[in-house]
Amino acid sequence: MPPTALQIREAVMSQKPDVATLFDALRAGSRDGEGITRDTYGPGEQFAHQLIAAHAIAIGLETRRDHAGNLFMALAGKNRSAPCLMTGSHLDSVANGGNFDGAAGVIAGLVAIRSLQRLGLQPDCDITAIAIRAEESVWFEVSYIGSRAAFGVLPAGALEARRVDTGRTLGEHMAECGADLDAVREGAASLDAKSIKAFVELHIEQAPQLVEASIPVAIGTGVPGNFRYPQVKIVGEYAHVGLPRRFRRDAVLAASEFALSLDDLWRKNDAAGRSMAFTIGRFHTDPKEHALTKVAGELTLSLDVRAYDKAHLRELEGAVIDLARDIGQRCGVRFELGARTSADVAPSHPEVVAKLTTAAEALAIATMPLASPASHDTATFTVAGVPSAMVFVRNANGSHNPREAMAIDDFLQGAAVLTGWLVAEAIS
Amino acid sequence: MPPTALQIREAVMSQKPDVATLFDALRAGSRDGEGITRDTYGPGEQFAHQLIAAHAIAIGLETRRDHAGNLFMALAGKNRSAPCLMTGSHLDSVANGGNFDGAAGVIAGLVAIRSLQRLGLQPDCDITAIAIRAEESVWFEVSYIGSRAAFGVLPAGALEARRVDTGRTLGEHMAECGADLDAVREGAASLDAKSIKAFVELHIEQAPQLVEASIPVAIGTGVPGNFRYPQVKIVGEYAHVGLPRRFRRDAVLAASEFALSLDDLWRKNDAAGRSMAFTIGRFHTDPKEHALTKVAGELTLSLDVRAYDKAHLRELEGAVIDLARDIGQRCGVRFELGARTSADVAPSHPEVVAKLTTAAEALAIATMPLASPASHDTATFTVAGVPSAMVFVRNANGSHNPREAMAIDDFLQGAAVLTGWLVAEAIS
Repeated sequence: MPPTALQIREAVMSQKPDVATLFDALRAGSRDGEGITRDTYGPGEQFAHQLIAAHAIAIGLETRRDHAGNLFMALAGKNRSAPCLMTGSHLDSVANGGNFDGAAGVIAGLVAIRSLQRLGLQPDCDITAIAIRAEESVWFEVSYIGSRAAFGVLPAGALEARRVDTGRTLGEHMAECGADLDAVREGAASLDAKSIKAFVELHIEQAPQLVEASIPVAIGTGVPGNFRYPQVKIVGEYAHVGLPRRFRRDAVLAASEFALSLDDLWRKNDAAGRSMAFTIGRFHTDPKEHALTKVAGELTLSLDVRAYDKAHLRELEGAVIDLARDIGQRCGVRFELGARTSADVAPSHPEVVAKLTTAAEALAIATMPLASPASHDTATFTVAGVPSAMVFVRNANGSHNPREAMAIDDFLQGAAVLTGWLVAEAIS
Repeated sequence: MPPTALQIREAVMSQKPDVATLFDALRAGSRDGEGITRDTYGPGEQFAHQLIAAHAIAIGLETRRDHAGNLFMALAGKNRSAPCLMTGSHLDSVANGGNFDGAAGVIAGLVAIRSLQRLGLQPDCDITAIAIRAEESVWFEVSYIGSRAAFGVLPAGALEARRVDTGRTLGEHMAECGADLDAVREGAASLDAKSIKAFVELHIEQAPQLVEASIPVAIGTGVPGNFRYPQVKIVGEYAHVGLPRRFRRDAVLAASEFALSLDDLWRKNDAAGRSMAFTIGRFHTDPKEHALTKVAGELTLSLDVRAYDKAHLRELEGAVIDLARDIGQRCGVRFELGARTSADVAPSHPEVVAKLTTAAEALAIATMPLASPASHDTATFTVAGVPSAMVFVRNANGSHNPREAMAIDDFLQGAAVLTGWLVAEAIS
């Protein structure tokens, strides 16, 4: 007989002290100034993988690592060859980031599995928690490295991408963490869609929308697709401060117009209820050339644009290209868009969303649907054909910063939704 | 009997081969990639001072250096104690700049003096060519170092300013070039307004206004004053790319709005015929923090604003401060304006302008009045009370870059105007 809602809540909530200790241990081992740094395929991420694997072994799970260093931690089901239920997230972080972005989803998977164990339940199929490698694209400027390698769809050239700080290639960094580069290069797969019944990723929210709504947990409506131009160059002409306005080809002014035009585009889309986001993370004149009394002849910026619908993304990219051309002509500068990367849109699977919502209702946990414009490995699972969805946990201060503020109580509510879903799916 | 216009022209134009050789020697000794670098109180400027001094000695001038390393090259007049006529400019350059900005004015002084010598004329008073130190404020971010030190008005703290690349102080760099730091610190003066009858600086134009007008030479209407904020910081909040628009405090967007608002202010002033200029030379997110998927929480920029009228400058500074406050409030960011420097406006002396214009007319050289928004040492002379003005020479490609394009024929026309003026003033 399946457990009652009260029993499930109790099994999850009773883990509060252990969960706090595990998050603290993770933080202690990757502390960097005020925040933490778990660098992709570097010492930070490596530490987190070792700590989590040790914990999984301690609670009796089967652990294995794939050719890309992704970590699988399985609770054996009655039918080991049936498609499994999978849950997890990534363990890497940005530099000087927060302790919860990514790690919360891995630990939530372990909490859910531990809850089943405490309730004395053996699931019908395997339940696998996954710690995915290399989700944070700030390091190598390549999206979803670990999850795409698991499905055998990481583009071959990705191994040559260079880490922005060390300048060394992804391949070198992966090899140091024990990855099998030949297998990655050949597109070997450790996961296939047919053997996964469904995938759910729990993640802290990266915006205060749940705080605003006073709701602890949200069910994600999907992961946006994106297109990125990491190195847009605007080339005008360096000139003396004495050059009158009509002769100037000022890269700073052209870049400013580009940024504000994109913001206006976003404002209009927001007003029309069409979710999107754009981000210019880097925006800089050339330190080797710029000076107090020199009109700036060059500016480099990074552009990331995301939306939830394929046609919408295409339309936005057309608008970006038009803006670059028009502003270029008007300001007498040249926009060099440079290399482009992209990721497909990945709407949540309606059935998984419905089941998560039902599980939350049964546990009397308030949820809301949420369009969160961040990227997540869930997109890789969706694109591969795995029915997938996300659970978001309330967080006041955004992520990718040391001030991430997720209450452990909120986290446990999210983990409870995950547990309720697993029970409903796998306990007969 | 004073020489005829034809004789003056001939005396100047016949120096064409020597002038070309001297410019070439200067370039050869300070070549840096495509351009030249004559770093302020560094090896580049030092080389130029030695070359020019050697040339002055070779043509029989009396040379001396003052406590700040400024170089005076005098043709003795009949009355050595009468106020002299002075002409010259600076020899330093920006990094990878052009060969003519500054140096043209020093060489023009030597050409004018050589012309008097060739015409066999002894002037009534001394005629002194001056090679001024340290005009380019890109190196130490302090204006008019050499000329202000000559008049004893360099602020004491300036010696502690650090060169932007070496990080070493102005005092250290000056000492290496033989300057007497105690004298500089005590405000010793090598020049005083009473002993200078008038000062004229020849300079290449930093804009193509003369090219546009098809006129080789202009008489400057004055040097603008300025106010500068070399290190404005815009502080918003770093955030995850997943943060929706309404929560963002994006430093890039606030900075873009600031830049475009200033451009709009300039456009309106231009339309109203009120000459001004603003330049944002540096404009950058923090390389230690910025990333492709991070909303920018901080941006640093440099601001230089200049105009020809004191009240106008005050009004512009009020507008800048208002913009920073309003945009700060609207975008949820904080503007930290940081340190401020300024320079007084320096209108040309009407009598000197009239005499230069008359000299040009007598030589049948077309001129026009020109408001050039650049800074020049002439401002220091004007502020000190010396009747001063400037002569600009046509140049297609602006200055502070390797493509400066001044025809030697145009330069000689400018030098002829200077010579004609000296003859009219000092040959009885």
